[in-house]
Amino acid sequence: MSVDLSDSRKKIDAIDRNLLELLNERMRVSRDIVLKKRETGLPVFDAGREDALLAKLSEANPGPLSPDGIRRIWMSIMGESRIHQALAADSAKDKP
Amino acid sequence: MSVDLSDSRKKIDAIDRNLLELLNERMRVSRDIVLKKRETGLPVFDAGREDALLAKLSEANPGPLSPDGIRRIWMSIMGESRIHQALAADSAKDKP
Repeated sequence: MSVDLSDSRKKIDAIDRNLLELLNERMRVSRDIVLKKRETGLPVFDAGREDALLAKLSEANPGPLSPDGIRRIWMSIMGESRIHQALAADSAKDKP
Repeated sequence: MSVDLSDSRKKIDAIDRNLLELLNERMRVSRDIVLKKRETGLPVFDAGREDALLAKLSEANPGPLSPDGIRRIWMSIMGESRIHQALAADSAKDKP
C-alpha cells in the first residue's frame, strides 16, 4: 500500500512560509518596542507583559496545541527576539 | 518623557493570534501525515525531511530572524507536534 503525503506536505510548507513571515515581522515590531523603551529609560524586559500575553493566547486557543505547548513555543520565539535585540544593540555600539 | 507602546503591542497581539492559528493548523496537518504513515507502516520520524524543510526556510528567509533562530523555533514547533502525536496515539490505545 502506498501513501501520498504530497498534499499534506504542501500544506505544511505553505503554513511554514506564513509562520516565517509573521515571525520576521514580530522580530521587527518587538525590536521597535525595545528601541522606544531604551530611548525613554524604561526597563526592556517585562515578565508581567510576557505572562499576560501567554495567558491571553492560552485563553484564545482552540487547540490542539496545548497551553504548555504554547508556552514552550512562545518562550522560544521571545528568546529569539532577545538574541536579535542583544546583537543589534551590540553592533550599534560600533557606530559613531 | 513618556512612550506610547500600545500600537506596537497591538501589532504583536495580532501577529500572535495569526501565529497561534497557523500553529494549530500545522499540528492538525502534521498529525494527518503521521496517521497516514502509521496506516502504511512507514517510519514516522523523518530527519531528512526536517533538515530539508529547515534548509528551504533558511533559504527563503529575508531576516531579521537568523538561520539559527529558525532552527531553534522550528525544533520547538516540531517537538510539540511529536508530543501531540504521542499523546493522541496513547489515548487511541484505550479505545475499542
